[in-house]
Amino acid sequence: MNKTRVCVLGPMGTFTEIAARKVFKEAEFTYCSTVDEVFDLVDSGTEYGVVAIENSLEGSVNTTMDSLIEYDLKIVKELIMDIRLCLVGPAGTNFKDVKTIISHPHALAQCKRFLSENFPEARLQRHESTAAAMAEVRNLRNSAAIGPKEAAEIYSLRLLRENIEDARSQTRFIVISKGEGSGNKTSIIFALRDEPGALYKTLKEFADDGINLTKIESRPSKKKLGEYLFFVDFEGSLKDEKVGKVMNAVKEKTTYLKILGSY
Amino acid sequence: MNKTRVCVLGPMGTFTEIAARKVFKEAEFTYCSTVDEVFDLVDSGTEYGVVAIENSLEGSVNTTMDSLIEYDLKIVKELIMDIRLCLVGPAGTNFKDVKTIISHPHALAQCKRFLSENFPEARLQRHESTAAAMAEVRNLRNSAAIGPKEAAEIYSLRLLRENIEDARSQTRFIVISKGEGSGNKTSIIFALRDEPGALYKTLKEFADDGINLTKIESRPSKKKLGEYLFFVDFEGSLKDEKVGKVMNAVKEKTTYLKILGSY
Repeated sequence: MNKTRVCVLGPMGTFTEIAARKVFKEAEFTYCSTVDEVFDLVDSGTEYGVVAIENSLEGSVNTTMDSLIEYDLKIVKELIMDIRLCLVGPAGTNFKDVKTIISHPHALAQCKRFLSENFPEARLQRHESTAAAMAEVRNLRNSAAIGPKEAAEIYSLRLLRENIEDARSQTRFIVISKGEGSGNKTSIIFALRDEPGALYKTLKEFADDGINLTKIESRPSKKKLGEYLFFVDFEGSLKDEKVGKVMNAVKEKTTYLKILGSY
Repeated sequence: MNKTRVCVLGPMGTFTEIAARKVFKEAEFTYCSTVDEVFDLVDSGTEYGVVAIENSLEGSVNTTMDSLIEYDLKIVKELIMDIRLCLVGPAGTNFKDVKTIISHPHALAQCKRFLSENFPEARLQRHESTAAAMAEVRNLRNSAAIGPKEAAEIYSLRLLRENIEDARSQTRFIVISKGEGSGNKTSIIFALRDEPGALYKTLKEFADDGINLTKIESRPSKKKLGEYLFFVDFEGSLKDEKVGKVMNAVKEKTTYLKILGSY
């Protein structure tokens, strides 16, 4: 039997891959260099893609939000994962020898206190990904990287200290696919007509039918000042008659409605 | 008489300074290295600060939105400006000699078509600001920068081509101050209670009194997944009795309300 094919942001050992492996125990993974490439591969035939959509400290992942608008793909699952960070170096590295620390700017920011207490003199070097920082640090002397423990194992690095983040954060990941999912949560995107009370009237459709919104985030349309796209998650499945009725009413009241699916 | 003191994002010749000079014809300008520093200086005594809050192509300016939450300052004016870009080089540079082009990533992205048609082979180099790119290009050979025409004059650069942007964009700038402004537009930030229909009920207060929202943008609180802050602009002044009544009702219905002022 062929394995399920899943694409994720690479290189090996990213938080996205760790999240994806919790959903897909046995799968053939493809490592993409950008979030956009993940959407592109799923659009052109790879069964599933996994991408981060929101972190509790850093906010929304813009490239994912933009790609959800651009591509005609569905959300079929979500997963929330705690983000724990560790400090690692090449075999033989000692904690006290570390002079340079490499990681993604968000990871460096999330370990600010740990770094200032333990490495006030170290040079902090930004890298585009925590996993890529780990891959790079293998060949460097007196250097360490910050990232997921799982990546340290993949790259045979020495664990110097675990859980070094100042504040714990969580990241929400979504699984995207060409096919429909199922479940009791639904995500949509819509744009309002340019008229007074447009958002109020749209939300009234949900409120009147007792549908609870779990997220509402608006973002500038990037076309015209004052135009917004609304990303809304709500409780209920597209298979529910009530939800279908509300979607029809919302379609009437908006200039753009994209249904991202139930999961 | 002392001149009004205004701080803006530097170096000299940024779009922010150009916008600020449209509002303050005669003023003493201080050039800050970050948006955060602009807020900081106004907070500690400089009369006014000018910052970009939104661009029609790039969306919201995150650092400005974050600082509006963090600092206790008021919006006292807004200004929308067309963003036009030009290609400039040191005196003596010819269009055909340009091998390297330096600018802010947004400016490079906005001139993508012009660059691929005219400079398919050129090396594109990212800089943190269009004005800073112009300052730097003065000392480089076979290089050009992309930025505002006004900055080209400041840095005595040669204008190689004007209006090279693929699509025109607009940026909204705001003037911040410790004192209150006045006018018929008001900006607020609020956070909702965690209960069904919370946003709907809050917007109902505006709708019931016929107050028109001109902007509603929500952003993750960066504290907890699923918690959002809403940035709302509406028509009306805090001096209007009706607006005061609605603000009291909104305060009752939300867990956080910050009034950024009328302007």
